[in-house]
Amino acid sequence: MIQFYAPDINETLTLPESEAQHCIKVLRTRIGDTIEVIDGKGMRYTCRLLDDKPRHASVEIIERFPVLPVWRCHITVAIAPTKNIDRMEWVVEKLTEIGVNRIIPVKCRHSERKEIKIERLERIAVSAMKQSLKATLPEIWPMTPIDKVISELNATQRFVAYCDPTIPRLSLAKEYNPQSESVVILIGPEGDFAPEEIKAAIDAGYCPVTLGDNRLRTETAALVACDTFHIISQLTQ
Amino acid sequence: MIQFYAPDINETLTLPESEAQHCIKVLRTRIGDTIEVIDGKGMRYTCRLLDDKPRHASVEIIERFPVLPVWRCHITVAIAPTKNIDRMEWVVEKLTEIGVNRIIPVKCRHSERKEIKIERLERIAVSAMKQSLKATLPEIWPMTPIDKVISELNATQRFVAYCDPTIPRLSLAKEYNPQSESVVILIGPEGDFAPEEIKAAIDAGYCPVTLGDNRLRTETAALVACDTFHIISQLTQ
Repeated sequence: MIQFYAPDINETLTLPESEAQHCIKVLRTRIGDTIEVIDGKGMRYTCRLLDDKPRHASVEIIERFPVLPVWRCHITVAIAPTKNIDRMEWVVEKLTEIGVNRIIPVKCRHSERKEIKIERLERIAVSAMKQSLKATLPEIWPMTPIDKVISELNATQRFVAYCDPTIPRLSLAKEYNPQSESVVILIGPEGDFAPEEIKAAIDAGYCPVTLGDNRLRTETAALVACDTFHIISQLTQ
Repeated sequence: MIQFYAPDINETLTLPESEAQHCIKVLRTRIGDTIEVIDGKGMRYTCRLLDDKPRHASVEIIERFPVLPVWRCHITVAIAPTKNIDRMEWVVEKLTEIGVNRIIPVKCRHSERKEIKIERLERIAVSAMKQSLKATLPEIWPMTPIDKVISELNATQRFVAYCDPTIPRLSLAKEYNPQSESVVILIGPEGDFAPEEIKAAIDAGYCPVTLGDNRLRTETAALVACDTFHIISQLTQ
């Protein structure tokens, strides 16, 4: 099944031009054919193509139905973007694919990357959402300072993952409660969080965790953390 | 800590030229300096550099000690290589980083890629092993037909993961027993295993599994499966 992304389909009844190009020029969809359209907000629409000009690909909605995420817990991954942008783009693709609700690029003291353009990350998330047959786009925040993330995010459980072995850590797999309605996990930069950042998170109520005994890259840690939430949740289903 | 890879260090007492180049030209290590060397077979050596010519970087071994994997279960991931080679290279990097003992590229009926050069995959695994501070290189097999994989691999638990919802599947997270000494997981190609391949695996005693309700790409499925073994094991530690 191919899904087209049209965030405003319900109002405009028209595909955005890039999606229309793909639909009409590449896949050769014709007037009267039916297509599946998602809005990134949890709705899927079965539509009939009324006009096959890429600049004005209008549709008629035949059926609309909600496509809920397959996981129940609202997951936020707050991650210091990697120096190598490919690795950050990769993690956005993979987090979207395995299932996440919100991705927050975090600026830390040891961050190798202090700025990030989120438009490209959003395009990657759209592509991964379509490919993995979801209908909800993860929310991607602009770069946010760590102190703001720590103080402003609320969740049933909040975790901070780091490498520094001198500050005691618990096991994320054991601490995560699959009944939690929402979780936040903070993942530090290549050089780890500064000790005062870890302390600030713990003082604010974050649970200090390790993801296991392996040394993981930043982007791998984000993925393993998100996998941990999904896998532990499956045990109770 | 930087690790250099010299598979025959114990016999040759010399760094391979590419490693010696990095050690001497890039990192400017000098005669008398100590370096850490791994052999990919589970041993780490603290060495003193005796000669700083890149073509003949001889060393003296000061200390040798075993570095065991941090996981106890022997993990084999048998995966149909993706059409896009970048995705296959990426999964080799990530599996090595999160911890795997053996990677087997599998040729299936629906495989998009029928041949693969493993030399480049081995270089990627070496790099990931060094970076993640391991001392054991995963074994990488050449491309192997699915029927050979099914009939020849032995393990305490063997799993076949697929998408086809018409053949009943269990949950990998629930079925994996963290007391198992060894596991094998089969991951199919982009177009999934053929039904007769799934049947052959089940007939041979493989447990049919799903990795959850998400639709995952081949390379993501391999990573999530390997994560499942590690995360479930952590619950019993």
